[in-house]
Amino acid sequence: MSLLDTPAVKDLAAYCRDVAQRAKRASAALATVLGEVKIAWLLRSAELLRASSERLAEANQLDLDAAPGYGLTDAAIDRLRLTPERIESIAAALEEVAALRDPIGAVIDSTVRPNGLRIDKVRAPLGVVFFIYESRPNVTADAAAICVKAGNAVILRGGKEAIHSSQAIVDLLAQAAQEIGLPEDAVQLVSTTDREAVGHFLSMNDFIDVAIPRGGEGLIRRVAAEATMPVIKHFDGNCHVYLDASADPEFAERITLNSKTHRYGVCNAAESLLVHADAAERLLPRVAKALTDAGVEVRGDERVRKLVPTAKPASEQDFGAEYLGPIISAAVVDSLEAAIDHINRYGSHHTDAIVTTDLASAQRFTAAVDSAAVVVNASTRFNDGGEFGLGAEIGISTDKFHARGPCGVDELTTYKYVVTGTGQIRG
Amino acid sequence: MSLLDTPAVKDLAAYCRDVAQRAKRASAALATVLGEVKIAWLLRSAELLRASSERLAEANQLDLDAAPGYGLTDAAIDRLRLTPERIESIAAALEEVAALRDPIGAVIDSTVRPNGLRIDKVRAPLGVVFFIYESRPNVTADAAAICVKAGNAVILRGGKEAIHSSQAIVDLLAQAAQEIGLPEDAVQLVSTTDREAVGHFLSMNDFIDVAIPRGGEGLIRRVAAEATMPVIKHFDGNCHVYLDASADPEFAERITLNSKTHRYGVCNAAESLLVHADAAERLLPRVAKALTDAGVEVRGDERVRKLVPTAKPASEQDFGAEYLGPIISAAVVDSLEAAIDHINRYGSHHTDAIVTTDLASAQRFTAAVDSAAVVVNASTRFNDGGEFGLGAEIGISTDKFHARGPCGVDELTTYKYVVTGTGQIRG
Repeated sequence: MSLLDTPAVKDLAAYCRDVAQRAKRASAALATVLGEVKIAWLLRSAELLRASSERLAEANQLDLDAAPGYGLTDAAIDRLRLTPERIESIAAALEEVAALRDPIGAVIDSTVRPNGLRIDKVRAPLGVVFFIYESRPNVTADAAAICVKAGNAVILRGGKEAIHSSQAIVDLLAQAAQEIGLPEDAVQLVSTTDREAVGHFLSMNDFIDVAIPRGGEGLIRRVAAEATMPVIKHFDGNCHVYLDASADPEFAERITLNSKTHRYGVCNAAESLLVHADAAERLLPRVAKALTDAGVEVRGDERVRKLVPTAKPASEQDFGAEYLGPIISAAVVDSLEAAIDHINRYGSHHTDAIVTTDLASAQRFTAAVDSAAVVVNASTRFNDGGEFGLGAEIGISTDKFHARGPCGVDELTTYKYVVTGTGQIRG
Repeated sequence: MSLLDTPAVKDLAAYCRDVAQRAKRASAALATVLGEVKIAWLLRSAELLRASSERLAEANQLDLDAAPGYGLTDAAIDRLRLTPERIESIAAALEEVAALRDPIGAVIDSTVRPNGLRIDKVRAPLGVVFFIYESRPNVTADAAAICVKAGNAVILRGGKEAIHSSQAIVDLLAQAAQEIGLPEDAVQLVSTTDREAVGHFLSMNDFIDVAIPRGGEGLIRRVAAEATMPVIKHFDGNCHVYLDASADPEFAERITLNSKTHRYGVCNAAESLLVHADAAERLLPRVAKALTDAGVEVRGDERVRKLVPTAKPASEQDFGAEYLGPIISAAVVDSLEAAIDHINRYGSHHTDAIVTTDLASAQRFTAAVDSAAVVVNASTRFNDGGEFGLGAEIGISTDKFHARGPCGVDELTTYKYVVTGTGQIRG
């Protein structure tokens, strides 16, 4: 029987409230659970996943059967599929999270005041995370692992396209929790696909400490507008590669090509190319040819089109566009400052790169470009939790507040001040 | 002429939009201004304040004349008054902020990845701060100083009770900015007291990065509900002192008394006293007598009243109350765990103290109490930016997100990743 055939939750508001309350209770216990208990749960979950490939395949088949009915593309259906290799990689990811340093209780800053009072700033869990995401089943396991490692309870609201696969994974995580003695409500999957459920959860800031939407822009805007608790947003990026006057042509070609073509549909892919006027003649034809040879359409301003006859005209809209496909906008700028202004104006403050051999240009670009990641002489594609060495990430924040850029275990924590005295009072 | 006599701003929405846009433009320049320019501005502002006591007194007199019309109490009118001593202390506070380490550009974490990519996490300004506060004029100067030190532009929305004093102060800050070459729109005071203006600013998340309300609970709830940008909230605290079974009686008396009576109307004053059952007979009569002698009314549960005959009965509401006055609720608890549960249930996650000689109790209390500051053997009154050594604070956050506890210069910043390579691309 498909989960979607079960009768709708009778009282949706009461159901959501119960889930949120359970999460809050679990989070109180999780806040001080020993790190070794979290590790044991992650390792046992990995074992159970590996041992349950048949059960997972059955659940996955229900999702695959339903997929054409949701109008999923072949590529999306492929991403949904739980092959033995993918189950292995989900299990391995849990083991990687187990191996990360436990963040909770670490002293991240410390002073002793003149009156002898010791002030320790200590990492503490956020509490309850409400994570809203789209279809891929591996995200279910990744998000659960990283939230619990940070001492948080998590409410998972996955897309309907993967609901059976996600439920099967969460069942195994719950079995491991029961065996190990981790609070079972540490990880809960919302068992209804009713869209109204999201609204109920977003209203409960007494139980939920942060909402994290990952998916299309519409979902993220809805969550940001409705949420009564803080939100960590993950928008796509309009990322730039700027070729400075001094740029090495080989670097320029390699970095632009990788930033644009390594993967098209990702938030840290380049969508726009800027070239300093003094280097345009030297660099643009070579870089544009490499892009065109790779199947990328170049849309340029007038000065670009003079040097690249195959380029199509770029409109104002093109410079603000996130194509997420084989198109790149291109413009010639008169100075480094003009490049910075262009990026801060048209960009999405996600990831922007400069290719340069000039130290002052690199310094000025990294200081003045207002983006989560500013990159010197490397691909924009490196803005990623794994590539930054965070070990695992729940997404790449496009906010400035609390967490910016890749969000790993530490970004899912807060801190508290632990003040230790010997009888001090204020005079 | 009073500022309040000037004709209302004709198009309020357009006025607010212009202020916000100016702030955004100023913030782009402020983000990379040299630290020595910010220091020069702060020192020159202090000079101008000291040299302008007459002008400030005149402006202040307009506010003092209007105060009875606003129904201000004598105490509130006194807080509004700008005496020469107070002007000196405002100027001195600017000099203290000048002396703080500049936070911008500091590398707060750094790794070199196996592929040679250097990942630096670098402190960066938030951008534009919208600060909404009530009457005391010194807050105007303090907030401007700390926001600009952190590289942010600030929009100040002060209470109407101090509007002339605040305007006079901001005029001097603007004069210093002009002389020194700091962007003049770095600090702007909203020149209308129309309440609708707040709503306009709270809708402009394209220009404003964070809203910080400081004042009554109604103001903070309104801002949290209406804001489209993140908010740092500063609620009052229902702070606890818990006397553990092992507590030293002299510490118990001194710390409870100071936490409750050092100042009544502040967010880190104790509002509730918990005592372990095993120590109640030993500690409660002495501590209650000290409180009563200091003019504090004790409202206790049944077990408290048995030991303290003068105590009045406490209701359920008393345990959740923030009296901000000479009243304290009191209860006897059966265990450390019961104290922790009580605090996490009734408290406001602000500041909670334990008095104990037992190491395990101190460890368990500080780990399990979910508050911005947990204090061992010292007064709750120490949860304060100055006392923590932050140098200056814009308030004490009761949020878990982004900033918790005292918010100084660092808490008004974000970070960016600066990634430096030598041609790396993703394989």
